[in-house]
Amino acid sequence: MTTYAERLARIQNRSRSLLCVGLDTDAEKMPMHLRARPNGILEFNKRIIDATKDLVSAYKINFAFYESLGKKGWDILERTVAMVPSTIITIGDAKRGDIGNTSTQYAKAVLKDLGFDAVTVAPYMGKDSVQPFLEYHDKGVYVLALTSNKGAFDFQYQKIGKRRLFEEVVRTVKGWALHDNLGFVVGATKSEDIRTVRRLAGDLPFLVPGIGAQGGSVEEVVRYGCTKEGAGVLINASRSILYASPGKDFAAAARSEAVKLNNEINFFRDKYF
Amino acid sequence: MTTYAERLARIQNRSRSLLCVGLDTDAEKMPMHLRARPNGILEFNKRIIDATKDLVSAYKINFAFYESLGKKGWDILERTVAMVPSTIITIGDAKRGDIGNTSTQYAKAVLKDLGFDAVTVAPYMGKDSVQPFLEYHDKGVYVLALTSNKGAFDFQYQKIGKRRLFEEVVRTVKGWALHDNLGFVVGATKSEDIRTVRRLAGDLPFLVPGIGAQGGSVEEVVRYGCTKEGAGVLINASRSILYASPGKDFAAAARSEAVKLNNEINFFRDKYF
Repeated sequence: MTTYAERLARIQNRSRSLLCVGLDTDAEKMPMHLRARPNGILEFNKRIIDATKDLVSAYKINFAFYESLGKKGWDILERTVAMVPSTIITIGDAKRGDIGNTSTQYAKAVLKDLGFDAVTVAPYMGKDSVQPFLEYHDKGVYVLALTSNKGAFDFQYQKIGKRRLFEEVVRTVKGWALHDNLGFVVGATKSEDIRTVRRLAGDLPFLVPGIGAQGGSVEEVVRYGCTKEGAGVLINASRSILYASPGKDFAAAARSEAVKLNNEINFFRDKYF
Repeated sequence: MTTYAERLARIQNRSRSLLCVGLDTDAEKMPMHLRARPNGILEFNKRIIDATKDLVSAYKINFAFYESLGKKGWDILERTVAMVPSTIITIGDAKRGDIGNTSTQYAKAVLKDLGFDAVTVAPYMGKDSVQPFLEYHDKGVYVLALTSNKGAFDFQYQKIGKRRLFEEVVRTVKGWALHDNLGFVVGATKSEDIRTVRRLAGDLPFLVPGIGAQGGSVEEVVRYGCTKEGAGVLINASRSILYASPGKDFAAAARSEAVKLNNEINFFRDKYF
C-alpha cells in the first residue's frame, strides 16, 4: 500500500513542483466583481484552482477563513476540497489538538468526512492529542514545530536543557510516527533553523508557510529545508498568489505568480541539488 | 462597563455554582430513542440545558463533536449556543491558535458570529496568535496552561531553566492581558500543580476540565484552584453528566448528577473558605 510520504513524492516528481497554494480566501480581499455574488468565494476558489492546478502539488485550506462564515463557510469548505483533482494533495490547515477522545472527533471531521489528504496539528497537549490523526495511516499529519509568525519566539525558542522547545517537539514527536505519515510545519521566516529541523527530522516531509506576504526566503527554504534529493518540502504561498490582482484578471495573475514562484523554487533546486 | 471576570463572578455568586457542564454530545452515546431522530442531538442538548440551567454558571461546547458532523453539526452548534439563557456563560472550547491574521478570523467566528462569551486558545504559536481573541474586551479567553490528559507530560512538564513549560506559559501569557478577560485551562487531574498555577496567576479565572470520567479530585480542585474568596474557577464535567443514564430518564439523571457535583463542590468551598 502506498504511504502518504510515497504518494506526496510521486506527485511532486510528476508535477515537478514543490508548490502548495493556500486557499485562505478572504471575501474582503477578493476582486470586487465577485464579492456581491452568492457563491463568490466558491467561484473564486474554482478559478484559482483551474488556473494553478498544473503548477502545484498541493492546496492548503485554512479552516479559519471558512469558519468565520458559519455553516455556509463549512459548506464552501466541503465543496472546495471536492473541487481539487485527486492527483493533488489537499491539506486541512486546522491546527487542531485536544484530549484523545476529542482529537478522535477532529481527525474524523478533517480526514474522513471532509476527506483531506493531510492535516496540521498543534503539539502542546502531547501524544494522545496527536495520535488519533496518525492512526489514519494513508493521511499526512503535519505537527507544528517552528511557526512563521513573530509569536514563535515566545515559547518555541525557549530552552529546555540544551535544546529549544521546537527541537524537543521534533525529537519527541518523531518517535510517535506509525505509518510513514508524519511531517512538520516549519516556517520559512526562520530559515537558519529550518536546517536544524531538517537535521533532526531526517527525511520527514515539511510544510513550509511564510513565503510571500510573510517574507521568507525561497532560496534558504530550498537549500536548508529539502532532503538530499532536493524534495521533501511543500512550500506554501497564499496571499501573494490569491490577491496578485484585484481585478477580473485575478486568475491569470495568480497563475503568473505561481509560475514565477515555481520557477524560482526549481531554479534553487537545480542550483543546490 | 462590566468586564468578563466581573460578569463571571456575578453569575457564580447568584447561582451559587462553580459548575460548568460540557455539551460534548456524541450521537453514539445518546439514549437510543434520540439517535434516530433528525434533530436528536439538538433535542438532547435542549433537555440537558433545561434540566441543569439553574445549577450551572456555564456551558462549555467542544467544537470537535459538532465539526465531526459537518455543516449540519455547525448548525446544531449555532442553535445550541442560542438555547443557553443569557444569564449563563457559554464557552467555545475550540483550542484555536494561528498566525495573527488567521487568529483574527477564528476569534470572529467563535466570539462574534457564534456569540460565545468565552473561548479556549492554544499557546504554542505565541502572542500574536492569542491577542486577536483578547481584543474582544468583554469576552473571556482561557489559554491552555496545564491540560488534563496524559499527553500533558510530553511538553507541558518540560523544564525551561527552573520552571516547567506550563509555568512559563502562565507567567508569559499573564503579561498579555488587556481587559481583565484572560484566564487559564488547568486540568483537574494535576491537582498538586493547580496550586502552582493559582500562585502564578493571581486571581485570574480558571477553567478546570478533568473531573468525572477523567478522574480529577473535586476536593483538591476547590482547595487549590479557588481564589481566596472560594471562587475563580469553573469546574467542568461532561460525560459523567450527559450520559448519567442511557434511558429516557437521561435528563433527570443528568440533573441528579449535576446536583450531586454542585453539592460536593459547595461542601468543599464551605470547608476551605
